[in-house]
Amino acid sequence: MSLLMPIGDPCAFCDYLAGNRPYTLLTRDNLTATLVTREQRGQGHLLIIPIEHRPTILELTPEEDAAMMKSLRHAAKMIISAFKAEGIAVWQNNGTPAFQRIPHAHFHIAGTFPGGGTEHGKVPELSIDETDVLAKLLLAHK
Amino acid sequence: MSLLMPIGDPCAFCDYLAGNRPYTLLTRDNLTATLVTREQRGQGHLLIIPIEHRPTILELTPEEDAAMMKSLRHAAKMIISAFKAEGIAVWQNNGTPAFQRIPHAHFHIAGTFPGGGTEHGKVPELSIDETDVLAKLLLAHK
Repeated sequence: MSLLMPIGDPCAFCDYLAGNRPYTLLTRDNLTATLVTREQRGQGHLLIIPIEHRPTILELTPEEDAAMMKSLRHAAKMIISAFKAEGIAVWQNNGTPAFQRIPHAHFHIAGTFPGGGTEHGKVPELSIDETDVLAKLLLAHK
Repeated sequence: MSLLMPIGDPCAFCDYLAGNRPYTLLTRDNLTATLVTREQRGQGHLLIIPIEHRPTILELTPEEDAAMMKSLRHAAKMIISAFKAEGIAVWQNNGTPAFQRIPHAHFHIAGTFPGGGTEHGKVPELSIDETDVLAKLLLAHK
């Protein structure tokens, strides 16, 4: 009676936070970080993660709960402002049957595309230089 | 520079909470309620809403943030226990371009089906009697 979890050792998100592997870090506070994902499925698609390694939302502390939501809201406001997004989609997957791929809890958040919706099929993988450009645009609306 | 919102006056969720229209209420605390949706897109598909009318996550208070996450986690545990779900999907839509249909913030949470995933195409609309049966099953795992 438990979730089927993806394998990730070392954890990619922990590696990004430690600076062991490059990734675009948008913002960071004591409890959470916001990353610019290389698979952009909407306008300004970001990932909100706890700094501590927590496999799913089941392991988050009450303090992390509040901090994750605050960071989600901050991300939403940046996306709306930077991209004039008229819709904001949030999704969060726990376990491989829900398509979780990195075993460190994360919320996805993205502005909808003009015309509506986000893309859940195949998308190109951006370079870090490209996600850095998105970060610069978003941070101008911090 | 703002979200395109669905129209709902009176608000369906506020009506359900007030008992003006029937709906299956699973649990309720001071700040949040958990409903059994009639459009089941996974195993034990539930909706977590703030008691107060808030259009999107942008309007939630820090206290509601924490309470919503706590209720999400409680819902996840019930679903995992009641349905032996091996994945838990969470999604939350803000604005009509993101497919929000009721202008009262809500998180969707559902156990994945055996084999994985949830259903985002057409699903049948259950009766209140049917969602009451689901509630009884879930509450046995409260």
